[in-house]
Amino acid sequence: MMLFTIHLHVMPLKNLLDPQGKAVLSGLHNLGLQSVQDVRVGKRITLQIEAENSEAAVAIAKEAGEKLLANAVMEYFEIEID
Amino acid sequence: MMLFTIHLHVMPLKNLLDPQGKAVLSGLHNLGLQSVQDVRVGKRITLQIEAENSEAAVAIAKEAGEKLLANAVMEYFEIEID
Repeated sequence: MMLFTIHLHVMPLKNLLDPQGKAVLSGLHNLGLQSVQDVRVGKRITLQIEAENSEAAVAIAKEAGEKLLANAVMEYFEIEID
Repeated sequence: MMLFTIHLHVMPLKNLLDPQGKAVLSGLHNLGLQSVQDVRVGKRITLQIEAENSEAAVAIAKEAGEKLLANAVMEYFEIEID
């Protein structure tokens, strides 16, 4: 068994409003960073997973995303292996 | 000017406790995902930045992280260009 580091990115669906992102955008403009055009705020969840191989680790991360970490009504997730 | 997509990852400092990560870890174990050994929960902030080149876009993202998005007492951030 090996230990894998897997990142799960949980983001608001692209066709949904993201009020937190809008608030950050407005804050950045107030700080003078006018060149920022859009902001989306999501979660980056880093998992240490013990598995036989990277495919098995990704499968566990996918199950974690589907069962607990992402709310499919409002969010989607992507998986990144470190 | 071009539009760049830059991701900013704001994570709890490695030597600090992450209660949200511990709660997620416990939730995953309760779902039967025992092979997950550790969880850290941070933010993934996706910025659309108008800039002359990618170096300029990264500099703006860095300024955003330092001035607004990360609290250096408890968090660090990393920048990823899409």
